[in-house]
Amino acid sequence: MDSQSDFLRRLAERLGPQGLITDPDDMAPYLAEERGAYRGQAIAVARPRTADEAAFLVAEAARASVPIVPQGGNTGLVGGAVAAGGLVLSLARLDRIRGVDPFDRALTAEAGVTLKAVQDAALAAGCLFPLSLGSEGTARIGGLVSTNAGGTAVLRYGNMRELVLGLEAVLPDGRIWNGLKVLRKDNAGYDLKQLFIGSEGTLGIVTAAVLRLFPQPRSRAAAFVGLATPQAALLLLKRMQDAADDGLTGFELLPSLAIELVLQHMPGTVRPLANRHAWYVLVELSSPREADLAGLLEGILAESYEAAETADAAVAASEAQRTGLWRLREVIPEARRRDGASINHDVSVPVSRIPDFLDRGLALAERAVPGVRACPFGHMGDGNIHFNLGQPPGADPAVFLAERERLNRIVHDLVHELGGSIAAEHGIGLLKRDELARYADPVALDLMRTLKRALDPAGLLNPGKVVPEE
Amino acid sequence: MDSQSDFLRRLAERLGPQGLITDPDDMAPYLAEERGAYRGQAIAVARPRTADEAAFLVAEAARASVPIVPQGGNTGLVGGAVAAGGLVLSLARLDRIRGVDPFDRALTAEAGVTLKAVQDAALAAGCLFPLSLGSEGTARIGGLVSTNAGGTAVLRYGNMRELVLGLEAVLPDGRIWNGLKVLRKDNAGYDLKQLFIGSEGTLGIVTAAVLRLFPQPRSRAAAFVGLATPQAALLLLKRMQDAADDGLTGFELLPSLAIELVLQHMPGTVRPLANRHAWYVLVELSSPREADLAGLLEGILAESYEAAETADAAVAASEAQRTGLWRLREVIPEARRRDGASINHDVSVPVSRIPDFLDRGLALAERAVPGVRACPFGHMGDGNIHFNLGQPPGADPAVFLAERERLNRIVHDLVHELGGSIAAEHGIGLLKRDELARYADPVALDLMRTLKRALDPAGLLNPGKVVPEE
Repeated sequence: MDSQSDFLRRLAERLGPQGLITDPDDMAPYLAEERGAYRGQAIAVARPRTADEAAFLVAEAARASVPIVPQGGNTGLVGGAVAAGGLVLSLARLDRIRGVDPFDRALTAEAGVTLKAVQDAALAAGCLFPLSLGSEGTARIGGLVSTNAGGTAVLRYGNMRELVLGLEAVLPDGRIWNGLKVLRKDNAGYDLKQLFIGSEGTLGIVTAAVLRLFPQPRSRAAAFVGLATPQAALLLLKRMQDAADDGLTGFELLPSLAIELVLQHMPGTVRPLANRHAWYVLVELSSPREADLAGLLEGILAESYEAAETADAAVAASEAQRTGLWRLREVIPEARRRDGASINHDVSVPVSRIPDFLDRGLALAERAVPGVRACPFGHMGDGNIHFNLGQPPGADPAVFLAERERLNRIVHDLVHELGGSIAAEHGIGLLKRDELARYADPVALDLMRTLKRALDPAGLLNPGKVVPEE
Repeated sequence: MDSQSDFLRRLAERLGPQGLITDPDDMAPYLAEERGAYRGQAIAVARPRTADEAAFLVAEAARASVPIVPQGGNTGLVGGAVAAGGLVLSLARLDRIRGVDPFDRALTAEAGVTLKAVQDAALAAGCLFPLSLGSEGTARIGGLVSTNAGGTAVLRYGNMRELVLGLEAVLPDGRIWNGLKVLRKDNAGYDLKQLFIGSEGTLGIVTAAVLRLFPQPRSRAAAFVGLATPQAALLLLKRMQDAADDGLTGFELLPSLAIELVLQHMPGTVRPLANRHAWYVLVELSSPREADLAGLLEGILAESYEAAETADAAVAASEAQRTGLWRLREVIPEARRRDGASINHDVSVPVSRIPDFLDRGLALAERAVPGVRACPFGHMGDGNIHFNLGQPPGADPAVFLAERERLNRIVHDLVHELGGSIAAEHGIGLLKRDELARYADPVALDLMRTLKRALDPAGLLNPGKVVPEE
């Protein structure tokens, strides 16, 4: 205990009174977990203001053999920022935007800057930072880089990995690696930033990133499309990509149930098409030029209607209608929460296998839990489906949730068989570590352990996350 | 010697008579180096037909402590495929395209498939594989992945790293890691393929890759633009990107000298603009749709002319004219070879720093070697300039080439000062290993060595390449 209080005293001296939290009430928000699935524990929460302070913390923790859990906005869904003792290192006060350059199309942000703040700074410079997801007001850049965040714009702009030009990180021994380059081409040795993107803070702590910017779209068009099958949606996707290429900035698949739940639970929503359809697609085109995208969209939809691929479609006639269509998509998670308990699966398969995956997955889920409200929706253009299963109406939530292991097995087995991923965009964290151990190629697991041992031999950085123990 | 002949006998048994070359004359093409800067040596050249055979070779070599140098098309420019003893492992017979799927927009190719063959297979499926570079008829996929190849289409489609969805590689201990996923989103643990992309065969041997495909362009427009300064080219680049975004598929900067050398040395070339200009830009727009790109291009160029940024421009009026403009760009290296000795620098800087880099770099080069024919050209949109310095007219080539070290220092010091890279797209190999040691952050060097030791503790895989010794 003496060495622990010494350790905390050294931290408090360096960080000042705002920098170190040990009061349990004040620590509570840093130990809470979004879905209540985990309860964190920590000896303190450290809040550095600079990369140097973060490096000092990590070096001191390494010396005292204290585990460190890095934390951004604490919006993760897999328990990656949950501490089980040790020190929580919150990056929230590293919140400066260090620079924006429209000629480089690049913005340098510290780890604690929220996604919304980055989007706003890009806009102020006449540019777009395209990453877009539900928690963008609270999610922070360091966490978004560390989890290789996805969202609705990946189809056009890529995952976070594709949006990072440079990186700064604190290594497990407390040294700072400065890779804040603003370069589009750089083959000077190993691409070290790749180690820290998507490794969920287990190999290093991201303190700043250089992010790619794009031109702001000046034209947008969106449509809501009714279709009979996921196969029809696949044909529509190909048609849209062939005609619009990177003009296609959204392609979200929604089942009938998703829309019915939204209409039932979310006030102010209206049915987007006159009739019900088994499936819907929300499609969006964008362009940095003034362009008649609604006309283009209507043309493609007419071709697809003539080919009997689509049953009905409505193109948004105004910006208000367009945002209204997106709202239908965005409130699905909330509508489902209001409807009852849910067991969720953030998975991906090759785009061509989505119809197969949905046909078989839905049948298997119904057989396992008759009456289950399967509501698979999401980023079809990326092959990323949130295969979410709601409790049967009127069932006891606890009884349904007790089926989690069995339903995970059914869904993940199928995903694995189809060459998919059991963790498409939310990561592994604590929640899926055992699933990763089950499904990953043994050679891959061994390589992951080799990397973890090489970079963090003492195992003090976000211990127990991502990499399954041997 | 006994153990070496045992080793070769085991290899010959497994690979058959076509699979192992020990005759010096037959080995010669595998030991030659494009520019004649290196002379390779090897005990044999092994030519496996499958990943299993490649894995067998690596395992046997590991057991016998024989170094292995992987080799694709042997078109590299930094000596990365040059052997200094040991075994050359040629991937040329792993030449199958395992699959193409237009719905997944993905193609799976073995390491020995040439870039041209991949481009052709994509075209046959109605798609585009966009990587494009001078040696595409002979360069092979394994080498292109291992060197994170660039070229003229990076501006729109990214480097090879951005074009790889999945990978298969033989590890230094002879195990095969199968990461041939066809997924757009996959956060299931560390992204292991990043280890093998761009590490030049020092951490593993790429045996196959899943590559991203895009829609074939249906419209193209190109223009040749005359300008007074690189600063004007920077303004034009921004104007083009803001107006065309990802429709901009080429933006090559050329100095006056490049065009004069082409006109002088390359028969059949014609002056693209009536007058001479200090600088030129070759700009190209593409679209997967039928679109009036020439009209769009003319509109942007007219705005830029009115803003006094550009002095003259010619938009190609036909496909023949368009390919003629590209030919002017593509024959620059050959025209320069015919003009005399050259000292080349494949470097990048932040796009915004290109004018500064060129102004200062050209002045420094002239001061160092009066009369030097500086001919910096290349992929301005990526910040990647081939800062190539030709001998003064009439000078003794050998005397000029003796200035290599001094000119390297001047150019690389400036690049480093501007936050650039001394190896933009050609890699490190042998040629730039000492330069990497000089300029890289010591923490970065230490991380590279840590990775090399962790994955290849015996140091048998492409030894002496990329990672500077301690």
